[in-house]
Amino acid sequence: MTTVAAYAAPRAKAPLERTTIERRPVGEFDILIDIKFAGICHSDIHQARDGWGEGIFPMVPGHEIAGIVAETGSGVTRFKVGDRVGVGCMVDSCGQCDACLMGREQHCAEGNTQTYNALDRSGEPTYGGYSTHLVVTEKFAVTIPEGIALDEAAPLLCAGITTYSPLKRWGAGPGKKVAVVGLGGLGHMAVKIAHALGAEVTVLSQSLRKKDDGLKLGADHYYATSDPKTFEELAGTFDVILSTVSAPLDFGAYLGLLRTEGTLVNVGAPEEPISLNLFSLILGNRSIAGSAIGGIKETQEMLDFCAVHGLGAEIEVIDASQVNEAYERVLASDVRYRFVIDTATV
Amino acid sequence: MTTVAAYAAPRAKAPLERTTIERRPVGEFDILIDIKFAGICHSDIHQARDGWGEGIFPMVPGHEIAGIVAETGSGVTRFKVGDRVGVGCMVDSCGQCDACLMGREQHCAEGNTQTYNALDRSGEPTYGGYSTHLVVTEKFAVTIPEGIALDEAAPLLCAGITTYSPLKRWGAGPGKKVAVVGLGGLGHMAVKIAHALGAEVTVLSQSLRKKDDGLKLGADHYYATSDPKTFEELAGTFDVILSTVSAPLDFGAYLGLLRTEGTLVNVGAPEEPISLNLFSLILGNRSIAGSAIGGIKETQEMLDFCAVHGLGAEIEVIDASQVNEAYERVLASDVRYRFVIDTATV
Repeated sequence: MTTVAAYAAPRAKAPLERTTIERRPVGEFDILIDIKFAGICHSDIHQARDGWGEGIFPMVPGHEIAGIVAETGSGVTRFKVGDRVGVGCMVDSCGQCDACLMGREQHCAEGNTQTYNALDRSGEPTYGGYSTHLVVTEKFAVTIPEGIALDEAAPLLCAGITTYSPLKRWGAGPGKKVAVVGLGGLGHMAVKIAHALGAEVTVLSQSLRKKDDGLKLGADHYYATSDPKTFEELAGTFDVILSTVSAPLDFGAYLGLLRTEGTLVNVGAPEEPISLNLFSLILGNRSIAGSAIGGIKETQEMLDFCAVHGLGAEIEVIDASQVNEAYERVLASDVRYRFVIDTATV
Repeated sequence: MTTVAAYAAPRAKAPLERTTIERRPVGEFDILIDIKFAGICHSDIHQARDGWGEGIFPMVPGHEIAGIVAETGSGVTRFKVGDRVGVGCMVDSCGQCDACLMGREQHCAEGNTQTYNALDRSGEPTYGGYSTHLVVTEKFAVTIPEGIALDEAAPLLCAGITTYSPLKRWGAGPGKKVAVVGLGGLGHMAVKIAHALGAEVTVLSQSLRKKDDGLKLGADHYYATSDPKTFEELAGTFDVILSTVSAPLDFGAYLGLLRTEGTLVNVGAPEEPISLNLFSLILGNRSIAGSAIGGIKETQEMLDFCAVHGLGAEIEVIDASQVNEAYERVLASDVRYRFVIDTATV
């Protein structure tokens, strides 16, 4: 075991503070990562404040991790010391089930092992990226290509793959019209990626407050959903609507924006069940879908795609000591568009 | 105008009775069809009894029509006298909108013209297939290949295309596991078609009452949904679930039967909104979709497919005078699996 520095919530709802944690010895198929940057995802806050009620404390959040390989186990074949690597929301899965064999480790039948706030397959708690070092099996690490700065790469490990995966699956590309609902951490990556995929991109945001940003990020159009005329004007328009928000939407209204055979795919979701009239799907052969992050192979594909297209997240790099303040700003939607912790300051 | 015999509901909820109606003159692009058989769809009963509240009476139901071309307009190019033809749920659309240009005339932005219980584009009421003759623009007629008897072909124009279209769209085929919910008029065609497409087919029915039939129709497995063990045993199994029922399902339970990235597609639907937790879609990257009949080109493709595979509907041919009795039997689920009126008896 190695003792390393980290920022942790000592108990539910307590501010994060500097502490030390133990990382496991580097096993045969493990790599030791010298973490350089860790993004702050909204779900970090939710979990650190025990919003889902089953948190494991002390909790070291962080599942948008970028760093450099510092050591490799004897059986490691994909990485060598000095490689630029990333780790996202999961660090293990069974590897045997239907979902794992499909390359959809996030849907592992046994449950994937989350990067933090989970117990690993030997029963030890996992700790995330707000830390100086991480030991992970090489299967759950990906290469960050030279074309992306490590700080801008970190958020791709969650916000990037979470939006890339459904955009690819549902056919965003040339000739297709894609709407992105919400322009936050996920939404801003969705706009960049959909644009780079060649789609015509529309942002649907509550207000026009971030319109200039949206257009700069690659959106072709920007509408306020607080204006009812938006829903008249855009009726029947989109092949894909990607909702990145967790506020309950008027799903009937949003489905009406879909073109025949269009899909409304949700990566954010309200906690309460929604009410849905199935005739709003039958009329127009429409679909409503969900999507959770992406598999490891697809995460690598996303990073390679981002490197080719020069895409990284829009970030504000902070010192670890600013993490609690950053949490408040995230909750106030006062970040454009992702905080990234410089883990040299942990 | 030509006066022809028909069976009509003179007013909402009244029994159907023999009457005469006027068919329009055969226009430049029209064909006159000598109707031979007309299937009885559950929605005929619903509309004749004004279940949707906006019926146009007198009403001649029937949108599963098979017959022989008796006359062609001067501009008709696709049909000649003597051809075997079918007409389904629609007889016209705008032809210009996005959906029409996609070959999805059923989703015409102006609304397609339904075969009966509608006003056509000149404002005249449309009358369906419980009749001796029909005049229709050739664009909305399809060829019934020699390989299918006309009586067994009639139900394909609704029950066949309604199930073929979503099965094709959502990838039913070799290596795929398909569940069909409900073994009625739609369900029995879904089983035949999914089997012919090469999928492994499971029927999910309330009871095992029709199990022998289901297996004969092509199902590989048959489960009772009244048995809670069904939902444990089949968890995570299906690539596609096609629901043909309009009873409200426990959608959370059915979504749990889907494999990662599977789709639950509804061609039947409860009239009331359903309650849906979006996390049941996000977990497993699942989708819930709707599908309405199919376009004209796809209807032709379906008929050609059925001819190649020797597929027709399982039918009970009746005289027109038995139609009211047949309606009662449909409502009592006492038909295996479609009544077809011999229109020579109208």
